[in-house]
Amino acid sequence: MAGFFTEDCLYKVTTAENHKLGFEAGIIYADTKGMLIDRIVSLRQANIYEKQSYRHILGLPTIVKNGGGEAECETPFIVARIMHDGKTDIFATGRYLDTCRLAGDELKFSSKIVVCDSSRIDTLMAIPL
Amino acid sequence: MAGFFTEDCLYKVTTAENHKLGFEAGIIYADTKGMLIDRIVSLRQANIYEKQSYRHILGLPTIVKNGGGEAECETPFIVARIMHDGKTDIFATGRYLDTCRLAGDELKFSSKIVVCDSSRIDTLMAIPL
Amino acid sequence: MAGFFTEDCLYKVTTAENHKLGFEAGIIYADTKGMLIDRIVSLRQANIYEKQSYRHILGLPTIVKNGGGEAECETPFIVARIMHDGKTDIFATGRYLDTCRLAGDELKFSSKIVVCDSSRIDTLMAIPL
Repeated sequence: MAGFFTEDCLYKVTTAENHKLGFEAGIIYADTKGMLIDRIVSLRQANIYEKQSYRHILGLPTIVKNGGGEAECETPFIVARIMHDGKTDIFATGRYLDTCRLAGDELKFSSKIVVCDSSRIDTLMAIPL
Repeated sequence: MAGFFTEDCLYKVTTAENHKLGFEAGIIYADTKGMLIDRIVSLRQANIYEKQSYRHILGLPTIVKNGGGEAECETPFIVARIMHDGKTDIFATGRYLDTCRLAGDELKFSSKIVVCDSSRIDTLMAIPL
Repeated sequence: MAGFFTEDCLYKVTTAENHKLGFEAGIIYADTKGMLIDRIVSLRQANIYEKQSYRHILGLPTIVKNGGGEAECETPFIVARIMHDGKTDIFATGRYLDTCRLAGDELKFSSKIVVCDSSRIDTLMAIPL
């Protein structure tokens, strides 16, 4: 996943309320690719959590701004969580505020802000959104 | 939102059952842009309802008919409702039956019929679908 | 629906766990167009089940492989089930693993494997996914 990001990048998971109020701190915050990798490794190796899986469904992206080698787009999402026993519920909904930048001949994320609609997000967020 | 519609337009929210039976009346009905604006203003200013938000996810649109400056398309949707306390559930599912028309150099909706799958829609529909 | 498939085709509904373990048997299995038609006819004519409807929302498809007249793509999905009384819940989530082939000037499915995230799928699957 980190490979989809540029070297200097921002990945943040926050709530609609905090985002509107301009609060920087989020549920997850990484502002370098190194921090992002740390975070992923820790999730893969250290955290112990109930076996579960997530299913992301993305709606149609809207390009908000485009030009100068960068594009900003906004994409709504819904994430379902499938517990070990098969029980499925809505885990999160919200929108991705993404900035994409040309890195060589590839498009990479220079910023991905995940704005969750609900302020009640599981404190143990096992997998980034 | 009204800006996405042509001057003479139809916006209707109905149920799959009523739509199949050809009933005109819907949960919400506006057949001019003026009515649509009225409806939106009343929702924004007059209605008092529990703070909540909605998340729309649209599936891939299918173009059903195209030609003569108009296109008809059908797009499935799912709407999640996020209550003030963070509780999230499926509020509605269904499909948009849209007719788009060229108005100058912009595509606008000349008709948007929202066909909800469930016949049990909250009587207090705070926000149009 | 069968018209979207090539004559020799594979349609299978399975679970993520079985798919990962390489098990062939699925919840639904048809490896010819004839079997597929049989299955659909039996659903339409013979099965008696509570009136309900399903709403499929597909996310954005990813083309995994392309060339030689065939393309493989993967598309995530979420299916909501709307019961007769209007109650709506998440019925299934997962991904479609599709192979599309040019048949004349039309693209048809030569294979569609439906991998459900949950291992707890209703034993009475009234309608194929």
